[in-house]
Amino acid sequence: MERSPVQRLLALGFLFALPAAAEEGMWTYDAFPRAAVKAAHGFEPSQDWLDRLRLSSVRLAGGCSASFVSPDGLVMTNHHCIRSCVQDLSSPKRDYLATGFSAMELKDELRCPKVEANQLVEMTDVTGRLQGVTKGLSGAAFNTALKAEMSEIESQCATGPEVRCDVVTLFNGGKYHLYKYRRFQDVRLAFAPEFSMAAFGGDPDNFNFPRFGLDAAFLRVWDSNGQPLKTEHYLPWAKEGAREGDLVFVSGHPGATERQSTVAELEFERDVALPLALLYLAERRGLLREYASATPERWRTTRAKLRSVENALKALRGRHQALAEPSLLADKRKAEAELRAKVAADPRLKATHAGAWDAISRALDAYRPMLAEYRLAEAGFGFPSDLFDIARHLVRAADELPRPNTERLREYTEGQLPALRQQLLREAPITPELEGVSLTFGFNKLRETLGADDPFVQTVLGREAPEELAHALVKGTKLFDVKERQKLLEGGKAAVEASRDPMIQLARRVDARAREVRKRYEDIVESVLKKNGELLAQARLAVHGTTGYPDATFTLRLNYGVVKGWEENGRTVPPLTTFAGAYARHTGKEPFRLPDTWLKARGKVPGETPLDMATTNDIIGGNSGSPMVDREGRVVGLIFDGNLHSLGGDYAYVPETHRAVGVHGEGLLLALEHIYGAGRLVKELRAHQR
Amino acid sequence: MERSPVQRLLALGFLFALPAAAEEGMWTYDAFPRAAVKAAHGFEPSQDWLDRLRLSSVRLAGGCSASFVSPDGLVMTNHHCIRSCVQDLSSPKRDYLATGFSAMELKDELRCPKVEANQLVEMTDVTGRLQGVTKGLSGAAFNTALKAEMSEIESQCATGPEVRCDVVTLFNGGKYHLYKYRRFQDVRLAFAPEFSMAAFGGDPDNFNFPRFGLDAAFLRVWDSNGQPLKTEHYLPWAKEGAREGDLVFVSGHPGATERQSTVAELEFERDVALPLALLYLAERRGLLREYASATPERWRTTRAKLRSVENALKALRGRHQALAEPSLLADKRKAEAELRAKVAADPRLKATHAGAWDAISRALDAYRPMLAEYRLAEAGFGFPSDLFDIARHLVRAADELPRPNTERLREYTEGQLPALRQQLLREAPITPELEGVSLTFGFNKLRETLGADDPFVQTVLGREAPEELAHALVKGTKLFDVKERQKLLEGGKAAVEASRDPMIQLARRVDARAREVRKRYEDIVESVLKKNGELLAQARLAVHGTTGYPDATFTLRLNYGVVKGWEENGRTVPPLTTFAGAYARHTGKEPFRLPDTWLKARGKVPGETPLDMATTNDIIGGNSGSPMVDREGRVVGLIFDGNLHSLGGDYAYVPETHRAVGVHGEGLLLALEHIYGAGRLVKELRAHQR
Repeated sequence: MERSPVQRLLALGFLFALPAAAEEGMWTYDAFPRAAVKAAHGFEPSQDWLDRLRLSSVRLAGGCSASFVSPDGLVMTNHHCIRSCVQDLSSPKRDYLATGFSAMELKDELRCPKVEANQLVEMTDVTGRLQGVTKGLSGAAFNTALKAEMSEIESQCATGPEVRCDVVTLFNGGKYHLYKYRRFQDVRLAFAPEFSMAAFGGDPDNFNFPRFGLDAAFLRVWDSNGQPLKTEHYLPWAKEGAREGDLVFVSGHPGATERQSTVAELEFERDVALPLALLYLAERRGLLREYASATPERWRTTRAKLRSVENALKALRGRHQALAEPSLLADKRKAEAELRAKVAADPRLKATHAGAWDAISRALDAYRPMLAEYRLAEAGFGFPSDLFDIARHLVRAADELPRPNTERLREYTEGQLPALRQQLLREAPITPELEGVSLTFGFNKLRETLGADDPFVQTVLGREAPEELAHALVKGTKLFDVKERQKLLEGGKAAVEASRDPMIQLARRVDARAREVRKRYEDIVESVLKKNGELLAQARLAVHGTTGYPDATFTLRLNYGVVKGWEENGRTVPPLTTFAGAYARHTGKEPFRLPDTWLKARGKVPGETPLDMATTNDIIGGNSGSPMVDREGRVVGLIFDGNLHSLGGDYAYVPETHRAVGVHGEGLLLALEHIYGAGRLVKELRAHQR
Repeated sequence: MERSPVQRLLALGFLFALPAAAEEGMWTYDAFPRAAVKAAHGFEPSQDWLDRLRLSSVRLAGGCSASFVSPDGLVMTNHHCIRSCVQDLSSPKRDYLATGFSAMELKDELRCPKVEANQLVEMTDVTGRLQGVTKGLSGAAFNTALKAEMSEIESQCATGPEVRCDVVTLFNGGKYHLYKYRRFQDVRLAFAPEFSMAAFGGDPDNFNFPRFGLDAAFLRVWDSNGQPLKTEHYLPWAKEGAREGDLVFVSGHPGATERQSTVAELEFERDVALPLALLYLAERRGLLREYASATPERWRTTRAKLRSVENALKALRGRHQALAEPSLLADKRKAEAELRAKVAADPRLKATHAGAWDAISRALDAYRPMLAEYRLAEAGFGFPSDLFDIARHLVRAADELPRPNTERLREYTEGQLPALRQQLLREAPITPELEGVSLTFGFNKLRETLGADDPFVQTVLGREAPEELAHALVKGTKLFDVKERQKLLEGGKAAVEASRDPMIQLARRVDARAREVRKRYEDIVESVLKKNGELLAQARLAVHGTTGYPDATFTLRLNYGVVKGWEENGRTVPPLTTFAGAYARHTGKEPFRLPDTWLKARGKVPGETPLDMATTNDIIGGNSGSPMVDREGRVVGLIFDGNLHSLGGDYAYVPETHRAVGVHGEGLLLALEHIYGAGRLVKELRAHQR
C-alpha cells in the first residue's frame, strides 16, 4: 500500500468523526484517547511515552512514514517507499533493485537523490488567524484570502532551508494548525532487500493476506557536517515479537481519508472521479506491462513506475468497490439525514448551516463537466512526464516568483521553495524512451477525451501525431541536464522566454489554458467545498457536542489495535505468516520467486518464525513505513500494506474486516542477520534492543 | 459503432416501452407505427413497402446489419463489419486492410471465411407453447423448461444447414417468436476501402460527429451452384441524396437495449458490471496498442482486434457516463415508483406481481459476489483466445452432442450446430504471438482477480507463470490446423479424451468448475431475472394497457427519423459533412491521414458533396451496416455509428441529442466511381438507380 502517486482525486471534507468501533481513529497526538485504551486494554500511555513516539516518527516527503530506530540516525521504512531511490542508484551493470543493497561500512551508504525526511518538531494552533481573514467571505474571495494567509504564516515560519512549515487543515477547517518540521535532505540508503522479496507475490498478493513480503528498508539521516545524525529520540527494537491478541500502536502519516464527505461527494467519487482515474490507470498499466516486457533494460527502468501504477490502480479499485457496496452509502445516507434533520430543527443553525449540503452538490454539478479537462490540462493526466513536470515548474516559477508571496500559486510560495528547488535540481536519471512512451499516452488521452477539434488539444498537438510530437520533445529537450534546469531557474522569466527548448516551449504554450482551468476549478468548486465543508464541521460540532479524530491529511497520527486475523467466506485468516510459509509459496516464477539469498539461507531462520502480520489498526495509504510498537514503545513491526477491505477505509472503518499488514519485527531482524548477513545494522539494532 | 464483442453484460429486462419522443422506437415490422409516421410526416408506408424493405434486409451473423442492393446478390454493409474478413484475406505481402480491395471482375471476388449472412424469411408467434411449459414454474425449473422447449422448437424448424431458427424473446417474455432465416455461407468480398479511410479519425473520432469516414463495404452472396444469388428483393439506389430535414428509415438489427430494466438492474450495471468490463478493456487496450506499435507485422495482425477493443471500451464508457448522469436514474426511479404504486393499488396484481422488483434485487445481490468469477471462468475474460474458444467448443461438443437435444447447453442444440460447425472449421488465420499475449493477459486477470490461492486459478496455472503457460500452450497446440479440429469434432468424446493437445487438456481441466459457475449463475440469477422480468412486463401491460416496441434483441427492427444536427454547449453541429471537409481534416498523420487514392483523386468529387450525415433515428450497436432509405424505399445512406449521446440509448432515447451517424448515399456512390474506380459496382448500382 502506497500513497497514490496520482494526485488526490478530490480535496474533500474533513469533519468530526464519531468512532463507531473502539479501534477506529487516526488520532492527532494532542487528542489521543488514552482513557479508551486503558479501559479496553488496561494500559494508559503516559505523556512521555507519547512524546517519545512522536519525536521518533519521521515523514518521507514523497508520501510515506518512517521512524528513527537508533541514536545514530538510522531510519526504518518500507522498501516500496524508497524504491525510486534504489532505482535511481541503479544502472544496467549495478542493479540494486534486482540484487538488493547492503552497505558494509558506514561510508558505503549511498545518498538518495530524491528522498527528504521530515521530523515534526512543533505544532501551533493558527485557527484564529485564518478564520479571522476569511470571516464573511465566500467563493473565490474566501479561497484567495485563506491561501494568502496560509502562505504568509508558512513563510514567517520557514526561516531557512532546514525548516519546512505547512499550515494543515484539520476537521475540514474546524481547526488549522501550523506544523513545523525539521528537514533532512542528506538521506542515505543503508539496506534494501531485493525488489522481488520486498514485493514477493507482486500485484496478485498486493492488498492481500496471508502475505510473505519483506517490504522493509533502512536509511540513515546524515547531518550537515557529513556525519550520521545524532538522534535523541528513537525506538528500540523489542526483544520478544508480537503475538496474536497483543496490543500494538502505529505512529505514521495516513495520506487522506474522506470519512466525513457528504453523500453527494461520495456519489461523485463513485460515478465520476474514480471511474476516470481507474480507466486511465488501467490502460496505462496495460501499456507499461507490455512495454517493460520487451527487453531486460526496459524492465529495469520501468518496473518501479509500473508497480506504482499497479498499486494505485488496485487501491482506487478497492475504494470504488467499497462505494459500490450498497450498505456503505446507505449508512452514510442515514447519518446525513439525521444530521440534516437536527440542523433543520435548530433555528439558529438552520439559518446559517442548512444550505451547506446543497451548496456542495451544486459545486459538484459544476465540477462534473470540467473534471476531465482539469485532470488532463492541469493535474497531470495529459502530461505524465518527469521532463514536462520540470518544464512546467520552470515556466511557472519564472512567472510566480516575482510576485508577492501571498499572491503566488501555493506551490511557489516561500515556504515551499526549498522542496521545489530540490525537486528540480536533483540528479536522478530520467529514461528518454519511457518518457516518450508516457507522453504519447498522455497526448492520446488528451485528444481522445477532449476531441480532436478542441482548442487546447490543437495547442498541444498542432498537426502532429502524439507519438511524433512526444519523441521530438524528448529528443530535443536539454532538461535531462540539471545545469540546464538551474540556468533556467536562476535566469527567470527572461531565460525562460528566450529558451528554444521544445519542452519549455510546450509548457509555455499550454500554460494560459491550464491556469485558466485551474482557476475555474478553484473558484467554482474548491472554494465552495472548503467553505461549506467548514460549515458542516461546525454543524456537526454543534449537534454532537464532541470531537473525534480529523480525516487524514498526511500529518502525524497515532492509533492502536491488536494482532488479529479475520473471517472471510466462512474461512479464518490467521494473523501471522511464517518463513516456512514463504518457502512453501515459492514457485520459482515471478512474482512468486524467492531470491537466491533466501534459497541459499533456507533453514537458517526457524520455519515457524513470524514473517508478516495482520492487525486491526486503522491505517491507510501514507501509513506505509510506520513503525508498529508495543506498550513498552518498542518496535514489533513495520506497516507496509492493508488488506483489500482496508481500502474502503477511505470512507469508513469496518472493524470486522479492516486489517493493517506489516512485516513482523522478529522476522525482520532475523532475516537481516541470517539471510542478508547485514551484521553492521543488526549490531546497531541489537545494541538498543530491550 | 459495433456491437460489442464482449458478451453482453447482462441479459436483462425487455419490457413494454411507452415512447416518450416521436422518433423513439426500435419497432418490429409487425407493429410499425404507420399512423404516427403519417401524422408527423404525411407519409404512410404501405404493407408492400414494408415487406420489400424487410426482405431486402440482411443480418450478418457476427453482429451487424446489411442489405441487398442489387438483384444479383450484392450486399452493402460497413467496412468495420467485415474488417476481420479483410484481415483474414490479407498477408504480409497483400495487405488489403491497408490498401483496400476492389474485385475487377466477378471472379475476383474473394470468399470471407467467417462471414455468414441471414435473411429473415418467417416469423411465428410461439408464446403459447413456451408459456405452456413454464406455467407454475420458477427458479432453475423455469429456466430448464424454457430452454428445453426453445431448443425443441428450433430443432423442429431447422430442417437443414441452409436454415437458421432462433426463438426470440420479446418484451422480456411477454412474447416469444420463432425467427426463421435463410443462411448464406458463401459470402464474398467485392469492395472495401482502405482501413484508414473507413476509420478516418480513428478512436478520437469514433462516436463523434462531424465525421469523415467512408465506413462502407460491398459483399456478394453466392448460391450453392457457385453463382451470384438472384435476389428478388433489393433496395435501389436513390438518384438524389438526402438533405437536412428529410424523413429517413433505418432497417437493421439493433443488438441489445435495457430500456425497461429496473432501477436495481441499472445500478448494478453502473456500479458493478460496467466497471469490471471497462477496466478489463482499458488495460487490454493499453497492452494491445503498445504490442502493436513494435513492428509493422504486429500492427498488421493486431489492428483489427485493437479497433474492436477500443470500440467496445468507448461504447461501454458512454453507457457508464449515461448512467452516472443523475437525471437518467432519477427519471427511471420516478417511473418505477409510479408503476409500483399502481401495482400495489390493484389487489389482484399486487398478489402476483408486486414482489418482482425485490426478487430481481435479491438475484442481483446473489450475482454480485459471483460476477467476476462467472466472467473469468465461463464468459471469456480469463481465456481471451481463439484457440481456447475452439478447444472449449470441441471439449463441450464431445460431452453435449450425445445428450438428447433438449438437455444440451443451448449453443450445442441441433438448431445451433450448423453455425457452430462453421465457426470451428473455417480457414481463418490465427496469429500465434498475439494468441500468446492475449492468453497471458487472461491468465493474469484470473490470478489477480480470484487470488493466487484460488483453486480454479491453481487448476489453470499449477505452478506455472502466466506467460510461460500461455506460450507453451500456443506452441504445443495443433488447433491452428482445421483438419485437427475436424478430427476431434468427429472423433467425439473418445478422441477428445485421448488428445494430448495442451489446449484441449486445459479446456478439459477447467471445464467442471466453469460449468458449475455457469449453472450457479443460470439457476440463481438468470432464471430469476427472466421470470420476474416477465412478471414486470405483464404488470406494465396491465397498467398501461398498450404495447410499444420491445427492447432490442439483435432481431430485425425498423425506425424512422430525420436528417438533423443538434446543439452542444451552445454550438450547432450541422447534420452533413462534405468531401471538402475530409480534405481539410487531413493532417497526413494517423488517424487523420487520407489514403493515397483520395489524395490523388482530389477535386474529382465536388467538395460540397455530402460525405457523412447525422439523423435522429433510434439506433444502437448492431445497427451498423443498416441501410437508410427514403420514403420511396431507395438507399440514401448507410448507418455506421452513433454520436456519444447515442450510447446512453441503451437505457433511454433522448431526442435532443441522440443521433445516428451514416455514410451519405450520394457521397458513397461518387467515391466508388471517382476515387476508387470501382466501375463494375457503380454500373451495377446505377442500373437500378431511380
